[in-house]
Amino acid sequence: MPSSPGAPLSGILVPHMVPLDGRGRINEEELARYVRWLVDRGVHGLYPNGSTGEFTRFTVEERRRIVSVVCEAAAGRVPVVAGAAEANVVETIAACQHALEAGARAVAIVSPFYFKLSPESVYAYFREIARESPIDVTLYNIPMLASPIDVATVRRLAGECPRVIGIKDSSGDISQMQRLIAAVRPIRPEFAFFTGWDAALVPMLLAGCDGGVHATAGVVPETTRAIYDDVQAGRLDAAFARQRQITDLLDIAFLGADFPEGFRVAAGLRGFAMGESRQPATDAQQADRRVLADKIKAAIERCGVRA
Amino acid sequence: MPSSPGAPLSGILVPHMVPLDGRGRINEEELARYVRWLVDRGVHGLYPNGSTGEFTRFTVEERRRIVSVVCEAAAGRVPVVAGAAEANVVETIAACQHALEAGARAVAIVSPFYFKLSPESVYAYFREIARESPIDVTLYNIPMLASPIDVATVRRLAGECPRVIGIKDSSGDISQMQRLIAAVRPIRPEFAFFTGWDAALVPMLLAGCDGGVHATAGVVPETTRAIYDDVQAGRLDAAFARQRQITDLLDIAFLGADFPEGFRVAAGLRGFAMGESRQPATDAQQADRRVLADKIKAAIERCGVRA
Amino acid sequence: MPSSPGAPLSGILVPHMVPLDGRGRINEEELARYVRWLVDRGVHGLYPNGSTGEFTRFTVEERRRIVSVVCEAAAGRVPVVAGAAEANVVETIAACQHALEAGARAVAIVSPFYFKLSPESVYAYFREIARESPIDVTLYNIPMLASPIDVATVRRLAGECPRVIGIKDSSGDISQMQRLIAAVRPIRPEFAFFTGWDAALVPMLLAGCDGGVHATAGVVPETTRAIYDDVQAGRLDAAFARQRQITDLLDIAFLGADFPEGFRVAAGLRGFAMGESRQPATDAQQADRRVLADKIKAAIERCGVRA
Amino acid sequence: MPSSPGAPLSGILVPHMVPLDGRGRINEEELARYVRWLVDRGVHGLYPNGSTGEFTRFTVEERRRIVSVVCEAAAGRVPVVAGAAEANVVETIAACQHALEAGARAVAIVSPFYFKLSPESVYAYFREIARESPIDVTLYNIPMLASPIDVATVRRLAGECPRVIGIKDSSGDISQMQRLIAAVRPIRPEFAFFTGWDAALVPMLLAGCDGGVHATAGVVPETTRAIYDDVQAGRLDAAFARQRQITDLLDIAFLGADFPEGFRVAAGLRGFAMGESRQPATDAQQADRRVLADKIKAAIERCGVRA
Repeated sequence: MPSSPGAPLSGILVPHMVPLDGRGRINEEELARYVRWLVDRGVHGLYPNGSTGEFTRFTVEERRRIVSVVCEAAAGRVPVVAGAAEANVVETIAACQHALEAGARAVAIVSPFYFKLSPESVYAYFREIARESPIDVTLYNIPMLASPIDVATVRRLAGECPRVIGIKDSSGDISQMQRLIAAVRPIRPEFAFFTGWDAALVPMLLAGCDGGVHATAGVVPETTRAIYDDVQAGRLDAAFARQRQITDLLDIAFLGADFPEGFRVAAGLRGFAMGESRQPATDAQQADRRVLADKIKAAIERCGVRA
Repeated sequence: MPSSPGAPLSGILVPHMVPLDGRGRINEEELARYVRWLVDRGVHGLYPNGSTGEFTRFTVEERRRIVSVVCEAAAGRVPVVAGAAEANVVETIAACQHALEAGARAVAIVSPFYFKLSPESVYAYFREIARESPIDVTLYNIPMLASPIDVATVRRLAGECPRVIGIKDSSGDISQMQRLIAAVRPIRPEFAFFTGWDAALVPMLLAGCDGGVHATAGVVPETTRAIYDDVQAGRLDAAFARQRQITDLLDIAFLGADFPEGFRVAAGLRGFAMGESRQPATDAQQADRRVLADKIKAAIERCGVRA
Repeated sequence: MPSSPGAPLSGILVPHMVPLDGRGRINEEELARYVRWLVDRGVHGLYPNGSTGEFTRFTVEERRRIVSVVCEAAAGRVPVVAGAAEANVVETIAACQHALEAGARAVAIVSPFYFKLSPESVYAYFREIARESPIDVTLYNIPMLASPIDVATVRRLAGECPRVIGIKDSSGDISQMQRLIAAVRPIRPEFAFFTGWDAALVPMLLAGCDGGVHATAGVVPETTRAIYDDVQAGRLDAAFARQRQITDLLDIAFLGADFPEGFRVAAGLRGFAMGESRQPATDAQQADRRVLADKIKAAIERCGVRA
Repeated sequence: MPSSPGAPLSGILVPHMVPLDGRGRINEEELARYVRWLVDRGVHGLYPNGSTGEFTRFTVEERRRIVSVVCEAAAGRVPVVAGAAEANVVETIAACQHALEAGARAVAIVSPFYFKLSPESVYAYFREIARESPIDVTLYNIPMLASPIDVATVRRLAGECPRVIGIKDSSGDISQMQRLIAAVRPIRPEFAFFTGWDAALVPMLLAGCDGGVHATAGVVPETTRAIYDDVQAGRLDAAFARQRQITDLLDIAFLGADFPEGFRVAAGLRGFAMGESRQPATDAQQADRRVLADKIKAAIERCGVRA
């Protein structure tokens, strides 16, 4: 997939984690190596500063640095959709400008969080960003963690804002995804729909999604890419078989530790020096994660790749 | 589909409403006429005393009478899965016995409601019923309204209780449905999985469900049956197009009045004398329902059938 | 407190459990003995067929029998507020008639459950009951388990329906209780407000509640009665000290097993043959309850009474 | 109340908003004037960078500037408890250092938000901050918006971390507050408990809270201060009467617009140039707020002060 401006987005994007060094700083070399490894294994794009990427635990400057490092490492081989939500619209636009300059294909803006906003406020927020942004914008709906972006709001934004070119929806609600597609595709045929819920990837693709943004793609990029290819080629049995593998991995990594710690453990098992989380852990939690690592290792191997 | 004992269940089952007469009593003739009409339009089975059927608003005796009338009207043309949950295990077993005698293929037992029970208690409840029931049992999981039946519990019951032959899951959660199927099918290949969430029917069938139990099937049985046939025949575009029609109908009927009132209005529009609900309505609500009827009528017509 | 018709309700009412015999039937003699014991220990009234009393696990006939036995055992010494909610308005009115004949002071009607109704439907339901009931009606709001009865609805019912004489609110939300009192007392000064959340009893009384309907009153009636007397006499330190005792007991009984099993264990520890629950238990649960019994025993003794 | 180091905190603290100028920048002069006005009207302390203060919508540098301006304007007349939560522990400690230098009495650290953390992670997070902070720390529990801080965690932190000197709990759950006090006061008699739920202030004070941190104190500081004094003096009727006034104001401001917009409108009505929110508003919302202003004005006047 080319990362040229205007090209529609599709396929498997990786909301990857960020390796940290022994002092808790971004390990830029390891991040670049991780990104190249992911691209080598076939992912269609990168999604830095997503939830799995712990965007809330970095500073403004660090989030920009992450985008720069990722864009440089991607080197135009795949598009980068850069998380760029900041404290308010002005700061967010500045981050959008930076993402553009760094070479990102688009930005991803999570719906306002902490405060739970009404649909009207969510609309007003994205409209303002869409008006000012110098780069294409994708919406990021994750109603478990942030103000929901409902179907009517997505349609309104899609209809009014050419800058808004797609949405990642992490609800895992396939009825809602179908409603979204039915509401938006007639007025914006090129609008891109991504699911962010790994366990629903195959049904979501069958229901018309253009791709997925999945934490498991940072662990077993081979498998998530193969799922996409299977569905494109109509190999549904193979797709569902692999779906079970990544759901199994997701469930273990997601339930085994406070999100996204399980995915740090998992990426470490693929050979990356992920470092310690900025969220402190007790001794009991550290011990739990050693046990978790064994379970994740087994789940990775059940995907047919070497952990 | 034969309703012979032991035959696996599949296809579209109807959790139909119950017509009432001017004094609020069951209108048995109209109920029988409604059932025959549904069977004539191709539904694969009947599911009396479901949530849409307002089982909680009838007495024990009335629930039995509903099952008798439905079984008699079905006349062996399609199987009847009869809601038989009563106040406790002893009363439920008596209802199971009645369902058997009335000619039902199986019973459906909703998870304990009012009290929110732990998985261990839900397991203990169904295990006891499965041990005592003289008729096959299907589980009914509707976590919005009753104690959830989790994947581990379903697997445990499927593994230990031959009497438990299937589940209806109304969560609409396609990830959960895939987990259920992955957990149970290897040990019970004939176990039947039904979705109870109309808006997810096509993806659920693609993900391996055997059928659906849908309120909209009581309104546009032609369309829900056609969806099932489309998926069986691999006509996915047609299936998804019809899916949008029933989701549209569902959304209007579900959001337009306290559930399941919208479906009473809708069945009335198909020519049945449904009567007034046992749940009283204010004048304002009565007026709202007249407006709702127009919206539902349009949604039915968009399904290509005459309201 | 006299149980004469029309006398306002106040004080501590007991939503007691129902002893069962070895075959799972109501143990009427033990129930009567339990009721007399509670009245001897100073409770101001009885509240059969409440949630703690597991009303949903009995048949219509059993619920009536429970009311009859309790009224007879109370023998006019304290008022009985009898749970009388049935499947629909007609059945509920019949239960109200029975409660009147049995000698109850009033009935308690839980808000519609299973279906989650809108405020307008909740209003319509209670209005219909209030119009038809031959006995005074108290509302029962338990939003964790049933459709919420909001402040505007209570005010509307209080203003229009003289038969509605009070409310039990089990939300434990003291802000909401104050809003209720502020909304209703100006138009219905004698309207009675009861909290159903044991852990909030003292603050609720200070905020103007007339009393409490508490599961712990079925275990340590001495303590709950003493709390009421303490608050009436202005002994706040003593009241709060006892509040901590019953909160401690509540937390252990509530969290230690699926509600209301902990209270069956607890009543057993006060010397009553409660029998086995109608909700089946696994061996693991039975073992847990033996451990729980020790914890509850200690909590009862910390209340200063003998378990 | 002196703001000397080590003095226990009590009374009414104000989580005030921040006036913005026509370009959306902090209006420092108006902020200082607002702070002096609040202190003149008797509030016992200031709580900048709280939820009402929209801390998430400012940059790191702005949050520091707000603390500096507030401390300067408070001029030692009342203590300042400065919100200092940043993206991670290192950044938070830097903010704590700044608050110390600016003259704050303590910092307030909201529980981690966006990610929903387990009690063990919440404990680990606060323990780390408490170990490193150069200034006293108060916990901020707001389970509607951030990871809950449960009773066991508060007790653990209180027992292990002398730097942790109090908690603001915005749940409004009076049972939980009593559990907190019962768990902590025996081991840390000086630990300060504040409620953050305006509608529960009087009952919370009666139950042993040391004070309240209330958005309404930024609107009618006279009334919230009077409530505190009433309770201290045992004038419960007066206290509850004023409680009804601020609950009324709260309900209107809270429900009338996405929080905390109603409080911006309200502060404006007391004579401060609050400016436009950084959260954009549609024309429809702007119109709604003009209607809301009239309702808030009336509620303020019902408090007996001039809007």
